[in-house]
Amino acid sequence: MLRLSPPGTQRFSQARSFEAVYGGGEANVAVSLANHGLKVDFVTRLPNNDLGEACRSFIRQYGVGVDHIVRGGERLGIYFLEMGSMQRGSKVVYDRAHSAMATIEPGMIDWGTVFTGAGWFHWTGITPAISAGTAAVCLEAVRTAKSMGLTVSCDLNYRKKLWGWGKSAGEVMPELLAYCDIAIGNEEDADKVFGIRAPHSDVAAGVVEAGPYRFVCEQLAERFPQLQTIAITLRGSISASHNTWSGVLWQAGDFFEGLKFDMTHIVDRVGGGDAFVGGLIYGLCTYGPDYSTPWILRWRLPA
Amino acid sequence: MLRLSPPGTQRFSQARSFEAVYGGGEANVAVSLANHGLKVDFVTRLPNNDLGEACRSFIRQYGVGVDHIVRGGERLGIYFLEMGSMQRGSKVVYDRAHSAMATIEPGMIDWGTVFTGAGWFHWTGITPAISAGTAAVCLEAVRTAKSMGLTVSCDLNYRKKLWGWGKSAGEVMPELLAYCDIAIGNEEDADKVFGIRAPHSDVAAGVVEAGPYRFVCEQLAERFPQLQTIAITLRGSISASHNTWSGVLWQAGDFFEGLKFDMTHIVDRVGGGDAFVGGLIYGLCTYGPDYSTPWILRWRLPA
Amino acid sequence: MLRLSPPGTQRFSQARSFEAVYGGGEANVAVSLANHGLKVDFVTRLPNNDLGEACRSFIRQYGVGVDHIVRGGERLGIYFLEMGSMQRGSKVVYDRAHSAMATIEPGMIDWGTVFTGAGWFHWTGITPAISAGTAAVCLEAVRTAKSMGLTVSCDLNYRKKLWGWGKSAGEVMPELLAYCDIAIGNEEDADKVFGIRAPHSDVAAGVVEAGPYRFVCEQLAERFPQLQTIAITLRGSISASHNTWSGVLWQAGDFFEGLKFDMTHIVDRVGGGDAFVGGLIYGLCTYGPDYSTPWILRWRLPA
Amino acid sequence: MLRLSPPGTQRFSQARSFEAVYGGGEANVAVSLANHGLKVDFVTRLPNNDLGEACRSFIRQYGVGVDHIVRGGERLGIYFLEMGSMQRGSKVVYDRAHSAMATIEPGMIDWGTVFTGAGWFHWTGITPAISAGTAAVCLEAVRTAKSMGLTVSCDLNYRKKLWGWGKSAGEVMPELLAYCDIAIGNEEDADKVFGIRAPHSDVAAGVVEAGPYRFVCEQLAERFPQLQTIAITLRGSISASHNTWSGVLWQAGDFFEGLKFDMTHIVDRVGGGDAFVGGLIYGLCTYGPDYSTPWILRWRLPA
Amino acid sequence: MLRLSPPGTQRFSQARSFEAVYGGGEANVAVSLANHGLKVDFVTRLPNNDLGEACRSFIRQYGVGVDHIVRGGERLGIYFLEMGSMQRGSKVVYDRAHSAMATIEPGMIDWGTVFTGAGWFHWTGITPAISAGTAAVCLEAVRTAKSMGLTVSCDLNYRKKLWGWGKSAGEVMPELLAYCDIAIGNEEDADKVFGIRAPHSDVAAGVVEAGPYRFVCEQLAERFPQLQTIAITLRGSISASHNTWSGVLWQAGDFFEGLKFDMTHIVDRVGGGDAFVGGLIYGLCTYGPDYSTPWILRWRLPA
Amino acid sequence: MLRLSPPGTQRFSQARSFEAVYGGGEANVAVSLANHGLKVDFVTRLPNNDLGEACRSFIRQYGVGVDHIVRGGERLGIYFLEMGSMQRGSKVVYDRAHSAMATIEPGMIDWGTVFTGAGWFHWTGITPAISAGTAAVCLEAVRTAKSMGLTVSCDLNYRKKLWGWGKSAGEVMPELLAYCDIAIGNEEDADKVFGIRAPHSDVAAGVVEAGPYRFVCEQLAERFPQLQTIAITLRGSISASHNTWSGVLWQAGDFFEGLKFDMTHIVDRVGGGDAFVGGLIYGLCTYGPDYSTPWILRWRLPA
Repeated sequence: MLRLSPPGTQRFSQARSFEAVYGGGEANVAVSLANHGLKVDFVTRLPNNDLGEACRSFIRQYGVGVDHIVRGGERLGIYFLEMGSMQRGSKVVYDRAHSAMATIEPGMIDWGTVFTGAGWFHWTGITPAISAGTAAVCLEAVRTAKSMGLTVSCDLNYRKKLWGWGKSAGEVMPELLAYCDIAIGNEEDADKVFGIRAPHSDVAAGVVEAGPYRFVCEQLAERFPQLQTIAITLRGSISASHNTWSGVLWQAGDFFEGLKFDMTHIVDRVGGGDAFVGGLIYGLCTYGPDYSTPWILRWRLPA
Repeated sequence: MLRLSPPGTQRFSQARSFEAVYGGGEANVAVSLANHGLKVDFVTRLPNNDLGEACRSFIRQYGVGVDHIVRGGERLGIYFLEMGSMQRGSKVVYDRAHSAMATIEPGMIDWGTVFTGAGWFHWTGITPAISAGTAAVCLEAVRTAKSMGLTVSCDLNYRKKLWGWGKSAGEVMPELLAYCDIAIGNEEDADKVFGIRAPHSDVAAGVVEAGPYRFVCEQLAERFPQLQTIAITLRGSISASHNTWSGVLWQAGDFFEGLKFDMTHIVDRVGGGDAFVGGLIYGLCTYGPDYSTPWILRWRLPA
Repeated sequence: MLRLSPPGTQRFSQARSFEAVYGGGEANVAVSLANHGLKVDFVTRLPNNDLGEACRSFIRQYGVGVDHIVRGGERLGIYFLEMGSMQRGSKVVYDRAHSAMATIEPGMIDWGTVFTGAGWFHWTGITPAISAGTAAVCLEAVRTAKSMGLTVSCDLNYRKKLWGWGKSAGEVMPELLAYCDIAIGNEEDADKVFGIRAPHSDVAAGVVEAGPYRFVCEQLAERFPQLQTIAITLRGSISASHNTWSGVLWQAGDFFEGLKFDMTHIVDRVGGGDAFVGGLIYGLCTYGPDYSTPWILRWRLPA
Repeated sequence: MLRLSPPGTQRFSQARSFEAVYGGGEANVAVSLANHGLKVDFVTRLPNNDLGEACRSFIRQYGVGVDHIVRGGERLGIYFLEMGSMQRGSKVVYDRAHSAMATIEPGMIDWGTVFTGAGWFHWTGITPAISAGTAAVCLEAVRTAKSMGLTVSCDLNYRKKLWGWGKSAGEVMPELLAYCDIAIGNEEDADKVFGIRAPHSDVAAGVVEAGPYRFVCEQLAERFPQLQTIAITLRGSISASHNTWSGVLWQAGDFFEGLKFDMTHIVDRVGGGDAFVGGLIYGLCTYGPDYSTPWILRWRLPA
Repeated sequence: MLRLSPPGTQRFSQARSFEAVYGGGEANVAVSLANHGLKVDFVTRLPNNDLGEACRSFIRQYGVGVDHIVRGGERLGIYFLEMGSMQRGSKVVYDRAHSAMATIEPGMIDWGTVFTGAGWFHWTGITPAISAGTAAVCLEAVRTAKSMGLTVSCDLNYRKKLWGWGKSAGEVMPELLAYCDIAIGNEEDADKVFGIRAPHSDVAAGVVEAGPYRFVCEQLAERFPQLQTIAITLRGSISASHNTWSGVLWQAGDFFEGLKFDMTHIVDRVGGGDAFVGGLIYGLCTYGPDYSTPWILRWRLPA
Repeated sequence: MLRLSPPGTQRFSQARSFEAVYGGGEANVAVSLANHGLKVDFVTRLPNNDLGEACRSFIRQYGVGVDHIVRGGERLGIYFLEMGSMQRGSKVVYDRAHSAMATIEPGMIDWGTVFTGAGWFHWTGITPAISAGTAAVCLEAVRTAKSMGLTVSCDLNYRKKLWGWGKSAGEVMPELLAYCDIAIGNEEDADKVFGIRAPHSDVAAGVVEAGPYRFVCEQLAERFPQLQTIAITLRGSISASHNTWSGVLWQAGDFFEGLKFDMTHIVDRVGGGDAFVGGLIYGLCTYGPDYSTPWILRWRLPA
């Protein structure tokens, strides 16, 4: 996917050029893992044109494998991002309908080959949101991954603007999540997707306390008993320029709260959650499977 | 439509930013006419998002009226342009399927209102190439324009890559052109659209002599007897950096050849034909309807 | 007017290029109103050269009417702005003497035509500061506006560096303000122009409390009894990168305090007051003339 | 003087930034001489503000002495330059009226001190074109220079747009040139200033042959018998992107023609004549006063 | 190696930023081959710092394998390039002494592993020019390559400024070239390295005819009888902005001349020879080993 | 020295260009002093190539004398700087080994000539850290300076990454400092160089109180009894975007604490200490030698 942003803090109406980066939720996680030194492949569908090639090249530069990317379809998905500043939030204009990925169909990716020799498969809730085809391919992927013994992780990544192909996240995600070992979400995802809400929390009002998310984790674990690890990122949006960042980790009944970081001068908000997932997977790969040492978030035990 | 180009002579694979301008065949002509001091409106369909707004604002800055632009549809059409250089030609990646304009339907634009008080309607062959809807709206427009007494001009503007919705230019354009008073084309358009070819010319080999195009004009005039004026631009492509530029003009049986200009250091090739049309319409509006004074191209009488 | 700024936080001595925007107090308000969806014209005098044309085009892109701009004079006014940062304040070098606007004279603008069909006229104290001519044209304008029944608003906008043509703000502004229905100023303007100062306030020391400005409003209302609305913006300058922003509103005896906003990462300080005025006029146009519903600032009633 | 240019080949109407360089005819010559390794000072008047300081700093970086620059006046002179391309010529918008230099008066520069220890004084016809004051200061300078025994050179540099203060070049320049040892001009200057025209030449039509300029030199030498050296640059303007460049040299009756250079891909046209003068003065300083070895242009003897 | 260039046609003295690309003779060929679709690895030594990593990432984006790059040494080699324009040539400031590559020593690269599974090894004369170490590693490489049955190609690439470590090209290259199957050079390389000069040619004067290079090929083939293919590129330097480009090909006694291309608007001169080599190797790999079909240059048979 | 930085907050791996400034500890102080209006020369060794020239030109623009800079050596020292942001610190890649300055030797600079007419010599601990040669030249300089009666000041400027030529700062600096009248350091320098540490302070943990530095000053004064003034800057690193800044001043037994400034939106961290030194020297030059009026830091007396 191509992200196009007016330079700096320019508005869309002022822009005479757009900064370009290629990426997206899963690609960002792949780059993060490659940066951590893991061997990782990114699997997607890109159009057979110069932009598809540029996207492939962009991701490859970070050492992510691109050999399993399939080519075809009409166009590369695009989204336009206007950076926010202080009281003015960021604005996103999605232009990813009809993309190569949106028009993917089961069978186009040979998951058996993709997963041969692999130990982990990560996907996000953005993918099944795009189209019936992506949802079907997701199901195909998680089933194959599970059957081949891979660890499967999912970032719920709920995007209200994307779920427009006929089914809701609540209808689609449960079947997919049932194949996963690890679930990750932000402070709102479990609510938006499964209706599981932290008690006494009011995210819209900026109240993001870690404690109440133990309940969210436990409810998720109850509904999806195969989940071994649940991580929830907690972003407090003080302004577009200033966020706080923390998270909680639930592992087989144990619950840990992370430190809260003060992000006082945000350069680029997008992909923060993906970087978190990259670190989490790297940690789980490196230190696991002994989940009794939650190395990532165990800086502070909850009171 | 949004045009995105890598800076300077960068390739798509090198670009980390894209220069952005909003325009297209008809919009370019409108801006040219406004620059010449005429009162002009641009009519199109733009999506109801920030990019649609940015496009409207961009065109408005040149003094073109935008009040008749309708809003709706999914996305703004985009095309990516990599500038050529010497032996390397320019590359275009179209991404305009499913655009607001591509999904327009008859009735969305109230042509009666649009044309009230207007004296001239100009359209190009790019529009009906996009979709069945644009072709139908084109027909709707030229019929209304003609019935309301406007002068109608058409730039054939054949784009092979665009005609993909089921009918060919040869099937669609004749009915539309039948409502026109003025036809403009480049050295290949009449051939590609109507199969009318300059004798002894070999455009692909760069041989672009003016003389043989008298035959093309006469054939067009025979087939479309309502045409009062036919202009054909003659671009010789020595390289991506160096073109020649000339044209011929046919008016009610008279035939004139223009001077040949040497474009030795091309800055931006796109829109050259549109600028020609802008000048032609301006001239016809300013000096006409006495077509006996072909002010534009009469620098040199053919031998 | 053309604003030229070194890129980012560069000093004048480092700049090898200048970012260019065209605007100024009144133009900014006009753009703000157009953004709010109101029909608005900007009236000024621009030189008959390419820069005057570029300025006109720049403002027109935002949907502001430019048909009443007159052309003539020697040059376009310029000001150079070096952005401040933290402890280092912004620097302005004015270069607007001898501009087309500075050399305007009564009669050059046909205010009767300009105001036909209009309901509101807004001007700022920057205009009469420039020259005897601009002051005379201002008087001409407010008189005509009042006589034709328009609502007239004035932003006092005191600029010490500008008042250099022979008369002081205190000598010129009273006659002009007497034709106004609405007066707007910042925390210092009433003091600098009319000698009306908030008691116990020390703006230079950064103490900007809302309460004492009730007195300023009441004194203004007493001196200019035709004023129906008085708004005072209250900017606290913690640093060049961090301001607070609030305001008070006085309406026919009622006094309201606004919320105080924390502007923690300033992108561009210039025009903040103009944006406030744009919002205020929009609100008054949209919700008025029932001034009993001060929709803008009534977030918090003063104790 | 500050030169502001839209980036690349952008038009004024497209520019959202301007490239900035500080310079001008005399400053360019000074920088050229410093590049050649000579010790040189630039004398002018700059305003006492940040732009004046930036200008001084800019020139100083090239090793030109700036200690004799006086400070004062209202503003820094500006000119806006839109680069041409092929058939489209460059456009200049002068904004140098009321500049620090334009408002200079005799006595402001202590020429006696300036010239102490100096051997050469160069000035151009741009300076007396600006105002009565600059013309008077020029006279003051050449008189002092001559009386102190300096070699004095003048580039006629006729600028039609500048001579607007009441007297014409033809009225002012003769008295000034009478103090000069060396005169330099382009293919049109002698005609425009003194009415001395190369026979059979038609500069406007691009016919710039060297031969006829012997007559121009001889006429100049007859009218100004103290002239020892006369150089005329011959630029052929094939297009804005392509010029030819040559020159002739007259020395005490001898006449030499230079090679003709083909400038096929012009980067920046402005200052070409100044660079020529820099080379000429460097040559005269280095190889002279034996004028029998015209090292600069003696590549080819005229037939 | 990192190349740093002032933007556009700026001089070193004007640059406030440098455009950065990573590459060099061999890396350019590798990227060219990857662009042609071949599987290729680039082998070098890069420092263990962020710049070494950035260089690796840059090359990897084009699909070139980087797994055999070894890490170590002090610094990344740099060269600064000022682009020429017309009569002003490009300027290069080398800063590659003490680089990771310059301090390489035999044994650091395990050529046996590198060449396992490979069919072709290409190197250039730049490498042994850098240091005694690079020359020794080159010898190590060609010996191993030959012993493992790879085709070995060499671009003579003589760089006078680089050969400074004690031995001359003439002393070092013969031993290395003796292991090669294919030799490539430009119009001067054979002369500078082996003293073999095209008769009647005067490269410095811009006379670059193809015919005389048959003699050069034959002399090279006589001296290095194992050479199967010899290609010589023929660049005519009309100016820094305009070159001609052609070449000759000698294959087992047959001699072919290529078409001559007119490079009229040069964007970036550097790497032209490398691109030629990329095309040549691609062609030899794709169509060979039947050398009777010289697909590349056989557009025109010499008279 | 040339500093190359990716634009804005880009990482090294993202950079396709580098912003360039020339400077370094001593050069920064020189520019600061010139900005304060003092006459100052910068003495160093630069290579005899275009980059050395560009560096000289860059410094000269600020009015710093460059006549005593000697030319020679292999290369210009470079360092690459990636700007930090919030929790991510800045990264520096030094590439200054083998620079013209690193290979300087005693005798290359004629200090007697340099110091003639001078009153002050300032150097920093960066210089002797580079090589045995720079250390020897430093000793040569301070000895000459002292013998000629100059005031000598030293900024300890400890850089762990630089001291790599065989001797440690602790071995080299004492002899050099013994010739100094004024010593300046940051919160860690005295500890790193002389092992003198503020009691109860833990700089790594961000605890930077002024009080304990009285002890550091007194210990330094005891060890180097000729020191008349000691200044220590106290930077608190809250994040890469937010620092605090303060300092203490010891003068002949008196101890003063400075105000603490909150640097909330850091633009460029590098050179802050040099700017402090510039202000200090300016103050000492302007108000001294009466050290009883510590004008700089005497805003607040310690409790």
